[in-house]
Amino acid sequence: MHIMIIGGAGMVGAKLAKSLAGAGTLGDAPVDKLTLVDVVAPRVELPDGPQVELREADLSDPKVAKSLVDLRPDVIYHLAAIVSGEAESDFDKGYRINLDGTRYLFDAIRHAHGQDGYRPRMIFTSSIAVFGAPFPDSIPDDYFRTPQTSYGTQKAISELLLEDYTRRAFFDGLALRLPTICIRPGKPNLAASGFFSNILREPLAGQEAVLPVPDSVRHWHSSPRAVVRNLVRAGAMDLAPLGHRRSISLPGLSATVAEQIEALRDVAGDKAVALIRSEPDETIQRIVAGWPQRFETARARELGFSAESDFREIIAVHLEDELGTTVEDYRERQG
Amino acid sequence: MHIMIIGGAGMVGAKLAKSLAGAGTLGDAPVDKLTLVDVVAPRVELPDGPQVELREADLSDPKVAKSLVDLRPDVIYHLAAIVSGEAESDFDKGYRINLDGTRYLFDAIRHAHGQDGYRPRMIFTSSIAVFGAPFPDSIPDDYFRTPQTSYGTQKAISELLLEDYTRRAFFDGLALRLPTICIRPGKPNLAASGFFSNILREPLAGQEAVLPVPDSVRHWHSSPRAVVRNLVRAGAMDLAPLGHRRSISLPGLSATVAEQIEALRDVAGDKAVALIRSEPDETIQRIVAGWPQRFETARARELGFSAESDFREIIAVHLEDELGTTVEDYRERQG
Repeated sequence: MHIMIIGGAGMVGAKLAKSLAGAGTLGDAPVDKLTLVDVVAPRVELPDGPQVELREADLSDPKVAKSLVDLRPDVIYHLAAIVSGEAESDFDKGYRINLDGTRYLFDAIRHAHGQDGYRPRMIFTSSIAVFGAPFPDSIPDDYFRTPQTSYGTQKAISELLLEDYTRRAFFDGLALRLPTICIRPGKPNLAASGFFSNILREPLAGQEAVLPVPDSVRHWHSSPRAVVRNLVRAGAMDLAPLGHRRSISLPGLSATVAEQIEALRDVAGDKAVALIRSEPDETIQRIVAGWPQRFETARARELGFSAESDFREIIAVHLEDELGTTVEDYRERQG
Repeated sequence: MHIMIIGGAGMVGAKLAKSLAGAGTLGDAPVDKLTLVDVVAPRVELPDGPQVELREADLSDPKVAKSLVDLRPDVIYHLAAIVSGEAESDFDKGYRINLDGTRYLFDAIRHAHGQDGYRPRMIFTSSIAVFGAPFPDSIPDDYFRTPQTSYGTQKAISELLLEDYTRRAFFDGLALRLPTICIRPGKPNLAASGFFSNILREPLAGQEAVLPVPDSVRHWHSSPRAVVRNLVRAGAMDLAPLGHRRSISLPGLSATVAEQIEALRDVAGDKAVALIRSEPDETIQRIVAGWPQRFETARARELGFSAESDFREIIAVHLEDELGTTVEDYRERQG
C-alpha cells in the first residue's frame, strides 16, 4: 500500500508519517511506500520499513496535483493548508491554496478515475472553524456550517466538494474536523489559539507563559496523539456505512482554562502554575469568543473515533510523546 | 438605480424584470436602468419606464463578469444556472457554470471594490437542493447543508462564498432558497419536478396530464408571483440585521399531491381532475423521495418574506397572471 501525506512537513503530518511507518501497516495492509509532500521539503526521521519519498511541491500550482496523482497512491491524506490568520489577511492566497489547491487535487483524481478507474481513499483535515458563533452550548452533528472566517469558508467548501466527489465515486472520502490540538509541541507561536498550549507546555518546561483570556474560557481540545490515531483509523475503516455524509466533527475534550490549569497543578504543582502570567488581550478575547466550545460528536464516537476525557491525560500524552517521560517520573524529578 | 438581472431570459428573471419595470421603483429608489443578461439574448416585453439593455453573455467565460461589473449596477440579481438534471449529467459544465461562473462574478465585484469601493447588493437564487435526505419532517433554519446532487453542492458552495464575500464587505449579499415553483407556466417539461405543475396547468387548460407518483407525496411550493415578490423585497430591504448568516430558506406551502388535486377540483371541477392520468414512474418516485417536504422558515417570515398558504391561492395566481382571468370568471366560463 502506498500512502501519500500532503502537508507532510507539518506537525500532524510528520507525526502521522511516523505512526504509519512505525506500525508498518494500515488496517490489514502493509505500508510499502510513504510519500510526504509539502511546500518545504519534509525533513522527518522515520522508523525503518516503508520506502519513503519526500517531495517539495506546491498544490496551488495546477500542474502539481496531476504529478502527485500520477503516483497513484492508495490513500491520500490531504492536510495542507495555510492557517486561519494568513487566510484572513491574504484573501487571494487563502482561496488559492485552501480552496483551489484542494480542487486541483480532487479534479486530478477525477480525471485519473476517468482514465483507469483509480479511486483512492481521501482523508481531508477540516476544522471546527466551519462553525461560527452564535451556536448552541453543544454543537450537534446536524448543525449548519456558518464559518466566520475565510479559512472556515474554504474548509466548508472543501467538505462539500469532498462529499460530491465521494457520491460520484471518484474517490472514497472523509473530512475530519479536528479539535484545537493541545498540547502543540514546539515554541510558542502567535496564533490566537496558541495560549491554550503555551500555558501548559511552557510551565512544564519551567518557562513562563502568558494567559490573554479569563480562565472561564471554554474550548475544544484533543492531543496530537489522539488526532493521529483518528487519522489512521479513518485511513483504514470501511466508510460505506457513512453514506453520503462524509464530514465529521471529531471527538474532543471540552474544558475551561481553569480546568487546564488545575490539571497542570495536579501534575506539576503550584510552582508550575505560578509561571502563568495573566495579561488580558482584548483582541484575542474577542476572537476566542467566536469559537466553538463543545460538540456532541455522537456520530464520530459510534464510528470509533476518540479523544482524551481529562486534561491530565492530555498532559500525560505530552510528557510521554514530547519529553520522553511519565507523569510519575516527571513529578519525582521536580521533587 | 441600475438593476442587473443575470439569467434575465428565464421564467423568474423575466417576471422579475416586468415587476421592477412596472413598479418603476425598488424600495424608495427609482429604477432608471434594467440590464438583462443571459446566454440567449433575453426577449422580454417590459412596461415603459426604465432604460433597458439586453445582453447576450455567458458567465462561465472568465472575461464576461468584468464586463458586467464595469457597468456598476447598484443591485445584481444572479439567477443564472444550469438545472439539476444537466448539472448531474454533465459534471464539468455544472461546475463551470454554477460554481466557476458565480465565483467569477463575485471576484469581479471584489476587484471593483478594491478599485473604487464599489459594493452592490447581490441577490442570489439558491435552492432547497442544498438539503438532501434523510432530514426531519420540517427542516429548521439551522439545519446542515447536505446536498445529494452536484447542483445542490454548487448552490451550497455559492452560499458559502456569498457569505464570506458579504462578511468581507465586497458586496451586500443574500442567498434565497426558492421552493419548487408551482404553477410553472409554459409547456410540460421533462424535469423530475415537472408533474407538480403539469397536473394543474394542463387540466386547467383542458389538457391531459400525467402523475408519476402516489398522491401522498408531499413537497414544498411557491407561486412565481410570490417568488418575484420575495426577490423584490430582498433587493430593497436592510440586510444589516441579518448579520453574517445570509442564506435563507424562503417560505413556501407544504402540500401533498392529493391536496393539490383537491384544490384543482375546487376551482375547476371533477372534469378537470379526470384529466390527470396516473402513470407510476419508479425513477421519478425515487428522485422525489429524496426531496425536502417542509421547512420552518421562521427567520424568513420574521424578515417579511411570504408565500401562499393554500393551493387554491396558487391556482388563482396562475389564472390571474398567466390566463388573465379570475377563479370566478374561470368557473363561469367552464359552466
